[in-house]
Amino acid sequence: MRADLLIDSARGILVCDDASTVLMDASAAVADGRIIAVGPADDVRSQVSADRVLDARGMLLMPGLVNLHTHLPMTLLRGVAEDVDLQGFLEMVWAEEARVMDPSGVELGARLGAVEALLCGTTTALDMYFHPEACHVGAASAGLRHVTGPVFFSFPGPDGLSWEQRMDLARRWPDALRSIGGPHVPLALMPHAAYTVDLAGLAEIARLADELGAMVTTHAAENDTETADTLASRGMRPIACFAESGILRQRPVLAHAVRMDDDDVSAVAGAGASVAHCPGSNLKLASGAADVVGYRQRGIPVGLGTDGCSSSNDLDMFVVMRLAADLARLLRSDPAAISAADVVRMATLDGARALGMGERIGSVEVGKEADLILLDTRVPHLTPLRNPHTAVVFSAGRSDVRHVLVAGELVVEDRRPTRVDVPALLAAADARVATAAS
Amino acid sequence: MRADLLIDSARGILVCDDASTVLMDASAAVADGRIIAVGPADDVRSQVSADRVLDARGMLLMPGLVNLHTHLPMTLLRGVAEDVDLQGFLEMVWAEEARVMDPSGVELGARLGAVEALLCGTTTALDMYFHPEACHVGAASAGLRHVTGPVFFSFPGPDGLSWEQRMDLARRWPDALRSIGGPHVPLALMPHAAYTVDLAGLAEIARLADELGAMVTTHAAENDTETADTLASRGMRPIACFAESGILRQRPVLAHAVRMDDDDVSAVAGAGASVAHCPGSNLKLASGAADVVGYRQRGIPVGLGTDGCSSSNDLDMFVVMRLAADLARLLRSDPAAISAADVVRMATLDGARALGMGERIGSVEVGKEADLILLDTRVPHLTPLRNPHTAVVFSAGRSDVRHVLVAGELVVEDRRPTRVDVPALLAAADARVATAAS
Repeated sequence: MRADLLIDSARGILVCDDASTVLMDASAAVADGRIIAVGPADDVRSQVSADRVLDARGMLLMPGLVNLHTHLPMTLLRGVAEDVDLQGFLEMVWAEEARVMDPSGVELGARLGAVEALLCGTTTALDMYFHPEACHVGAASAGLRHVTGPVFFSFPGPDGLSWEQRMDLARRWPDALRSIGGPHVPLALMPHAAYTVDLAGLAEIARLADELGAMVTTHAAENDTETADTLASRGMRPIACFAESGILRQRPVLAHAVRMDDDDVSAVAGAGASVAHCPGSNLKLASGAADVVGYRQRGIPVGLGTDGCSSSNDLDMFVVMRLAADLARLLRSDPAAISAADVVRMATLDGARALGMGERIGSVEVGKEADLILLDTRVPHLTPLRNPHTAVVFSAGRSDVRHVLVAGELVVEDRRPTRVDVPALLAAADARVATAAS
Repeated sequence: MRADLLIDSARGILVCDDASTVLMDASAAVADGRIIAVGPADDVRSQVSADRVLDARGMLLMPGLVNLHTHLPMTLLRGVAEDVDLQGFLEMVWAEEARVMDPSGVELGARLGAVEALLCGTTTALDMYFHPEACHVGAASAGLRHVTGPVFFSFPGPDGLSWEQRMDLARRWPDALRSIGGPHVPLALMPHAAYTVDLAGLAEIARLADELGAMVTTHAAENDTETADTLASRGMRPIACFAESGILRQRPVLAHAVRMDDDDVSAVAGAGASVAHCPGSNLKLASGAADVVGYRQRGIPVGLGTDGCSSSNDLDMFVVMRLAADLARLLRSDPAAISAADVVRMATLDGARALGMGERIGSVEVGKEADLILLDTRVPHLTPLRNPHTAVVFSAGRSDVRHVLVAGELVVEDRRPTRVDVPALLAAADARVATAAS
């Protein structure tokens, strides 16, 4: 059969299915943006006639990473707030972003963040920020599968929009998404958090999600102060607010979920909601440590996220995988608390499922869209390579990502983004920050 | 004045002195292996006449990283033991190394580890392993400043040596070190741990250290089982064994020091001993979390180490810096528990001081040997760059290391080791592992 691309003779393929299958000396073929063959190198080579062959000898092929919680435009705010907790951080960041982040700043920051993410092997990101059209234009133009949507506060916020304007933006979001284009993504609505959106607002968003068929994501139970603020202003804990308002019935992606008590965990598990675990941000801001092993035992799907660069300082999902594995072992005092294969699945298929895209992306299987990355293992820090999953979690890093495909398109080739002039982008980002600071 | 090398117009220099000085748009000059000038780019350029100029625009210059605890030859054992605690790990690893690690395996593994370390920005390593001559030949040949020495057990161990043979090896170590050559390093003696060397043996090593003027390093208080085993076999905790035997008077580098009680901390602080904090290994093996903030408050110098690749799976000191910063914040529930600048100093000057080399390496200051690294910041994940110290700890990684000098020699240039044929080295490592496994 005809293929656009044959990825030939990979050292190994991490399929990232539920069985954590690894195929050694294997190939994959792509046509019309989808995976059409996966298997032993000789078999695939004999099955397909490919327009182009990518020599994958010495490389590991795996699904692109799914960053389940980030704020890409905040890449421009990297390093603004250091050595402060979540609330101190928010004060410093909100002041800075009100000054820097008009729509053109958002578009620039989202493009910068998308390029960084792609170079780090991330092919899909769930991204919450103001000015979602500008944000989506910036990130999708770099080739990222970029899931975003209107963000909601019960007060004006840095973008100055009223509640009615936010609802109006949300109703127009399907048209906006269509007109901007880019790889397929679900519609998403993004209430900021239970302490920043009141119960009536949350209920209205839940109804709109039903109406539009949109997914929902929100910050949830990030640290103790957030819980205390929510209790004080709403009379209940964050997860209870989401349950009470109907948000939880939407099976939202709950970012952070560090501070959940037993009732919270039961409610989240019962609703089928997912958690976006962000250990880099949680540790750096001293928010605490989410017990993801416990959540998974209770049936809550857990994906991984970086959070924004203003709190975690980069968009490196390899660092997040390593932190997630290490933190689970520390919390549980158990070196087998979570396997490397489970961590890799959290960063791929489990994240895709949380987005409702588990049938479409997240593993290297025939029929799925070709969101794929290739890691070059011919380096000292991956030699010898005994176990591909532990190599990915405990030895590999962003610099090992050599090629990246999104929906079959090579958006990073030999470590270079194909759609973006990187030196010009970096110069624009530096200029933007300097101008805003003057 | 004449210089061998002018490192011209760095974006910034992280001096890594006690004040954590940062010089922006600055240069440094090197002659005869030492730093002869550091300062504003225009000043240095006008002062020196250099045989060679290294264009450092867009780069951060900082001291090479000091890995204060590792086992370089175990790089060949990467991935041998996964999802097990320290004791399970030791059983699996000791069996494998008895099979693989003859002197030629040790030399090969040490060379592989040294190349990985240099590429990750490490210029000095305190390295404990069997067959120290072979180990030193392998690592020093790659250009690493490699501190090693005879290791001691009260039983034969994988190398099959008797106690008398170990003591004899130690007495001959100064001559061996001289004949092998390489950058200056101190003499070192390496009792493995208090549960593997009895009190009489420790006392004999302490006397020999006095006799030779050697430094001492040992594993100490790594996890609960080690403490229990030591209590059972020696009737006292590990730190008490070192105090009782005279080892602590040698101001040793204590690797791990995860499980220290108040008496232990007082004894270590009082003796002026140092801790080699290895968060990557401690977390992966679920050994626990060393309270380095507390240790530092009590006056204990703390450096950073990776441990061997069989437990932490790579030799990346950037990952270790990030883990150290994150873990301190989690343990202390305080996002200001330790600053990025302090973490960078732990990985440089504090490590150098623990080795007794604080006057010789560890900072970018005139008179010191030129152990220097250059990080190229012209990449998305380091843009914008507001704070060089937080950039190094929370955003940079091994792939940003572009040039590495040890004692003034460029041992990594444009990301390529200058003394080693890397493809041939990787092939030899893979062959060795395959042969040993058959």
